[in-house]
Amino acid sequence: MDAYGHINNVQVVRLLEEARIHAFGPPGGTGAFGQEPPVPLFSSVATGVQALVVEHRIRYTATLDYRNLPLNVEVWITDLKAASLDVAYRIHDPVDARVCVKAQTTLAFVNGEGGALLRITPEQKRQLAPYVGPALFR
Amino acid sequence: MDAYGHINNVQVVRLLEEARIHAFGPPGGTGAFGQEPPVPLFSSVATGVQALVVEHRIRYTATLDYRNLPLNVEVWITDLKAASLDVAYRIHDPVDARVCVKAQTTLAFVNGEGGALLRITPEQKRQLAPYVGPALFR
Amino acid sequence: MDAYGHINNVQVVRLLEEARIHAFGPPGGTGAFGQEPPVPLFSSVATGVQALVVEHRIRYTATLDYRNLPLNVEVWITDLKAASLDVAYRIHDPVDARVCVKAQTTLAFVNGEGGALLRITPEQKRQLAPYVGPALFR
Amino acid sequence: MDAYGHINNVQVVRLLEEARIHAFGPPGGTGAFGQEPPVPLFSSVATGVQALVVEHRIRYTATLDYRNLPLNVEVWITDLKAASLDVAYRIHDPVDARVCVKAQTTLAFVNGEGGALLRITPEQKRQLAPYVGPALFR
Repeated sequence: MDAYGHINNVQVVRLLEEARIHAFGPPGGTGAFGQEPPVPLFSSVATGVQALVVEHRIRYTATLDYRNLPLNVEVWITDLKAASLDVAYRIHDPVDARVCVKAQTTLAFVNGEGGALLRITPEQKRQLAPYVGPALFR
Repeated sequence: MDAYGHINNVQVVRLLEEARIHAFGPPGGTGAFGQEPPVPLFSSVATGVQALVVEHRIRYTATLDYRNLPLNVEVWITDLKAASLDVAYRIHDPVDARVCVKAQTTLAFVNGEGGALLRITPEQKRQLAPYVGPALFR
Repeated sequence: MDAYGHINNVQVVRLLEEARIHAFGPPGGTGAFGQEPPVPLFSSVATGVQALVVEHRIRYTATLDYRNLPLNVEVWITDLKAASLDVAYRIHDPVDARVCVKAQTTLAFVNGEGGALLRITPEQKRQLAPYVGPALFR
Repeated sequence: MDAYGHINNVQVVRLLEEARIHAFGPPGGTGAFGQEPPVPLFSSVATGVQALVVEHRIRYTATLDYRNLPLNVEVWITDLKAASLDVAYRIHDPVDARVCVKAQTTLAFVNGEGGALLRITPEQKRQLAPYVGPALFR
């Protein structure tokens, strides 16, 4: 909670991270087994492959009140390119359902520390296809 | 997640805060309505009353792996004094159920910024009585 | 530190917040006196005025290694409009000086909770004029 | 900053972590070179050795106002045992110098994930000897 009783805008970025990991699994080689995510995009990468956040874009469209209720976060894919993809999010207030945050994370996969950019594989594209939707920004 | 793939010990303290607010409501005059907590200890205080954390004691008894599953946190009251109380917690791993963290927060209520310490009211004691249990630390 | 030994991308947003408050002061009516900031943009607003983050845009151009040294953060103003402004940042690695993060925060001022958007005053524009520079994102 | 304009008690634990790493270096095998710490306790451990936080004890003795000034944190060693040690801290307000937080972290070193507890070496004891002082909690 920030000084105004809202969820601090930094913590919103952490909530996006949680939503992303809930949808796609913890990055391969990190964390521990939990549940099979809906799409094992991160958790299925080969050992040594790192999922890097390349860009964040976050629009705070309404103040996000701090409540003792979980938030609803929609997560989908918007821009599936040769070597990167965008995850889009909409955070809804759990009481009045209005959209409080629209956000987008651009991700890329690299082969180990400082390694080469990896292409999104046909298998990854096939997994993600049902979850591709419209972009939130331009 | 920390450098070892565990939940960072700082984030554990945030998880305790979330569990405490889930059980007792957001502090009065802060945040917004969500759901009625099991015991509205914090959310029912008079306007201007601040709930202060006086002490934290946290024992990390097993590494808490980062998983894409919610944690189970037990919360109870252990030391109901004239002007302070202790909240006790046990965090369980959601897969193997072992206890990873034992913790305790000492709380006091004060009347506004820098104000006098408030006594725990008979009404608060009555509300909390069913949740009083053994202390984790002596 | 994240699982790869870098500064977690969420914590980067907190570092931007710290740099912004260092440059412009804590928002009026929050926090306590520290030192006079270079430009008292936030700390000089009238009581009840809230500084809201409207948008964040953050590009992670190189991994930001976790080191026991302070980071160097450049902060300037890029888009001084009628009722909003953009703060731009460049975070430099403290050892090799490369740019690791380019970011931008769009801010607006509102009159209390849910209140009307406030125009940037001529006095604020005068204060900020020496710090206006080129935009990082178009 | 929390809802009362103070530094949130969770963030205090992060500040203790920063002070500890500033004094003793980032844990070996994590992070990157920065400056030589006053005592390279963490940064000098062998590859694969993990520094684990076993217990935290934190007493909030005065509200820690959020200011745009760095805090002063005293760090010393209080309990140098066969296989663990305690780091003690006192956080001082940077304006009026009062002690706002007294805290203690019990640390142990283990040999890799789930590995055996390591004894504090004579070399580590020699390094730490000049920094051993009185315990804050009994």
